[in-house]
Amino acid sequence: MLLNIPDSNKKRVVIIGGGFGGIQLIRKLRNARFQIVLIDKNNYHTFQPLLYQVATAGLEPDSIAYPLRKMFFGVSDFYFRMAQVVRIEQQSNRVVTDIGELDFDYLVVATGSKTNFFGNKNIERHAMPMKSVSEALDMRSLMLQNFEKALLTKNLSERTGLMNFVIVGGGPTGVELAGALSELKNHVLPKDYPDLDFRRMEVHLLEAGPKVLAPMSEKSSKTSLKYLEEMGVRVWLNTPVIDYDGKVVKTKTKELPAKTLIWAAGVHGRLIPGIAENAIEKGRYLTDEFNLIVGTENIYAIGDVALMKTENFPHGHPQVAPTAMQQGAVLGKNLYKIKSGKEQIPFQYKDKGSMATIGRNRAVVDMNKLHFSGLPGWMVWMLVHLLSLVGFRNKVVTLLNWVWNYINYDRGVRLIIRPFIPKNQRNT
Amino acid sequence: MLLNIPDSNKKRVVIIGGGFGGIQLIRKLRNARFQIVLIDKNNYHTFQPLLYQVATAGLEPDSIAYPLRKMFFGVSDFYFRMAQVVRIEQQSNRVVTDIGELDFDYLVVATGSKTNFFGNKNIERHAMPMKSVSEALDMRSLMLQNFEKALLTKNLSERTGLMNFVIVGGGPTGVELAGALSELKNHVLPKDYPDLDFRRMEVHLLEAGPKVLAPMSEKSSKTSLKYLEEMGVRVWLNTPVIDYDGKVVKTKTKELPAKTLIWAAGVHGRLIPGIAENAIEKGRYLTDEFNLIVGTENIYAIGDVALMKTENFPHGHPQVAPTAMQQGAVLGKNLYKIKSGKEQIPFQYKDKGSMATIGRNRAVVDMNKLHFSGLPGWMVWMLVHLLSLVGFRNKVVTLLNWVWNYINYDRGVRLIIRPFIPKNQRNT
Repeated sequence: MLLNIPDSNKKRVVIIGGGFGGIQLIRKLRNARFQIVLIDKNNYHTFQPLLYQVATAGLEPDSIAYPLRKMFFGVSDFYFRMAQVVRIEQQSNRVVTDIGELDFDYLVVATGSKTNFFGNKNIERHAMPMKSVSEALDMRSLMLQNFEKALLTKNLSERTGLMNFVIVGGGPTGVELAGALSELKNHVLPKDYPDLDFRRMEVHLLEAGPKVLAPMSEKSSKTSLKYLEEMGVRVWLNTPVIDYDGKVVKTKTKELPAKTLIWAAGVHGRLIPGIAENAIEKGRYLTDEFNLIVGTENIYAIGDVALMKTENFPHGHPQVAPTAMQQGAVLGKNLYKIKSGKEQIPFQYKDKGSMATIGRNRAVVDMNKLHFSGLPGWMVWMLVHLLSLVGFRNKVVTLLNWVWNYINYDRGVRLIIRPFIPKNQRNT
Repeated sequence: MLLNIPDSNKKRVVIIGGGFGGIQLIRKLRNARFQIVLIDKNNYHTFQPLLYQVATAGLEPDSIAYPLRKMFFGVSDFYFRMAQVVRIEQQSNRVVTDIGELDFDYLVVATGSKTNFFGNKNIERHAMPMKSVSEALDMRSLMLQNFEKALLTKNLSERTGLMNFVIVGGGPTGVELAGALSELKNHVLPKDYPDLDFRRMEVHLLEAGPKVLAPMSEKSSKTSLKYLEEMGVRVWLNTPVIDYDGKVVKTKTKELPAKTLIWAAGVHGRLIPGIAENAIEKGRYLTDEFNLIVGTENIYAIGDVALMKTENFPHGHPQVAPTAMQQGAVLGKNLYKIKSGKEQIPFQYKDKGSMATIGRNRAVVDMNKLHFSGLPGWMVWMLVHLLSLVGFRNKVVTLLNWVWNYINYDRGVRLIIRPFIPKNQRNT
C-alpha cells in the first residue's frame, strides 16, 4: 500500500528522522521548491543533550521533547508520518515503512545512532541504555524503585547493590550522568529516604581509556576528573567492563555490586536494511563530501549515521549535534543547487567547541583556544543548552526547573509514573 | 514477612492512600504523637481535578503529581511504603501488602474510587478510564495516534470513527473533557493535521439523566449546557449508553461511530478484601459519624470510599475532594482525642461550593448563594485550582502552561511518549 501523500509536481525529498540533522535540513528546504516528507517513529523531536536530566528527575520529559508537526506548521507541501522504516528499495526509489510505502526523488537518512554494546549480550540484557525519552524515564523509575526496594531488605549486600550505580563510558553522557547522580546522593535522596545510610551509595564511573572527556582539551579533561572526585564519584580509568549479570559488574581487577548499570560507552549508526554492504563501515554509511551515500545517486546520510572521511577527519566527524545540524544545513543548500544545476558546496565542519557539566557551578567548556570552567563554564553551558532547546515553552519550563533546583538543591520530579519492568520480566 | 518499619512506643496509624483525604490526615497528625505509615501504590499524590488537562495535552503529567516522600519530609516517625494492599486482617490488626505485612493500631482506608462500568464488560474492555496519571497519558497518546491513523485511511467511515470522541457522563470530568477536546478541535488539531477535514470530527457528550452537572445549581447546569453547545460539543441528554464494541457506541435511539469512548459516568469505592460484607453498601464502606467503619473498632474510611449517612446526607456525602479533605482533617483531630480520652467531634460537611470549566473564559461556579460564570467564573476556577495544587514548582509550571495556552490557543505537549496499546493487543 502506498502512503497517502498527495502527488506533487515538485521533487519529493523523504527524510528519515526528526533529530538535529533532519530538522535543520527541513528548515533550509522550507520554501516550497520541494515536497518534503518527514518520517519519524516518534511524533516529537528529542533534545538528547538533556536526557540525563530527565533520567535523574531534574526535568520533566515534556520539556525536552517538541512535537514535530508543530515545528513545521505552515510549511507548504510538508508531510509528517509517524512510522518505522523497514527497508530502503534503492532500485525503485522507494522506502517501505510499517504503515505503507513511499516513493522518493531524494532520500535522506538522518536516523542518528543507537547504543552499541559491542556484542556483549549479557550487558545488553541487563544494562540501561539512555538514548530516548522513554529510556530516560525508565531510568528515572528504576532508580526510584531501587531505593524503595532497598528499604525492604535487611540483607546488606543486596541493599548495597540496589543503592549503587555504575556508569560505563567517560564521555559527556557518562560524566554528566555521574555528576547528576552524585548530586542526588548528596542533596536529595537522603531527605527522601532517611532510613537508608547513604554512605553506602556509590556512583562509579568506568572508562576504558586513560581519561574522561577524551575528545576535549587536556585541561578540561583534568578539571572534570577533579570535579567528579570532589563530588564523590568513584572514577576508574583504564577499566573496561568485562561482564555484567544484572548484579555484579566485572572488570579485570575488581567486582562492583550494582543493580543498575548505565551504558554510555558507545554508539553505532541506526542503519536501515537496503543499502549495499560496501557503503557501510563501522556501523555508519560512507558518504562523499556532499553527504551522498557511496554507490547511490540520490540517497544521503547526515549526522551520527554518516561517515564522511576527509583530510582533516580521516575517521569521520564527531558524532555530535553540531555535525548533524551543519550537514543538514549544507545538504539543504545543495539540493537547491542540484535542482538549479549549480555546483554543490562540499561539507566543511566548523568546530564550535564542546562542553560538559558535572554539577552545580562545575562545568568545562572548550571554545577554540578558550577554556572556561567552574561557575563561568556552568553559566555558558546552561545558556547554550537553553537557547538550543526547541520552543519557548520548553525554554521557560526548563529554566524554571533549573532555578528551582539551584535554589532548593532539589530535583522536583521524583515520580514513578510508569514503573520500569526489567526486560526478562516483560510479557509474562 | 513483616515490613521493615522500626518499632515505636507510639501507636501506629497506617493510612492506605495518599490522595486528598490521606494527605490531609497526615498533616493533622504530624506532631509526633503517633507513628505514621502511609502506603500508596504510587510514589506521588495525584491532583485528579486536572487529569483531563493532561489527557488533552494542556499540562505535563509531572505538574499534577507530587512526590509523597517529599511532601512529608521531616515529619518525625513517618514512613512511606510504595505497595499494593492485598487484604486487611481485621482480627489480628494487620494489613497484607504485595511487599510484606504490617501491624496497625489504627487503620485508615483512604483508597478513593475507581471507574464503575456498572457490569458492562464490553464497555469496560473498550473504554478509556481516566482516574490516574497513566490513564490520562494513555488517553493523550491514543488521541494523537488516532489522528495519525486517520491520515492513513481512505475509508471515510473509518476516518470518521478515528476522529470522533464520545464521552459518557455529564459530571464535571465529562463536561471539562468535552470542552477541552472541543478546543483542541477548534484551535489546535487543524494546524497539526492540515490534510484532515475537521468538520468530520465530533465530540459527543452522553448523559443518562436530564441535565449536565446535575449536582450544581440549575443556573450553572443551564449555562454549562449553553457553553458546550456554543463550542460545538454535541450533548445528548437522557441518553444512556447501551453497548460499545470499540467502534460504534449504541444508545436506544442512535449509533455513533467512535474509536474512542471515555467513560466518566460513575465510580465506586476502591475496596480492599477483609472487611465484613455488611459494612459495604454501594461499593463503599459504611461508617459512623466519626468515619469508623461499622463493625470495626479501629478501622476508618475517609473520602470517596466512605459512606457516612447523616440526616442532611441520607445517601452519603458527595464523592469530591473537599469531603475527603474535611474527613481527613476531622479524623486527625479525633485520633488525638481518642488518645487523650476526650470526646470526639462528629463529622459535619461544609459545602465550599462547586465549579467546572468548559473552555477559555467559560466556567461555572456555585458558592453558597453566589453564581459566577463566563470570564469571572473562569478566573475563580483557575485561581482555586492553582492554589490547591501541591508544590510551588507545580503551581508555576501549571500557570505558565495556562498563560501559554491562553495567548497562543495552544496545547503544548502533544507528545506520544509511550504509545497506547489497546488491552486486547497487550502481551502478544
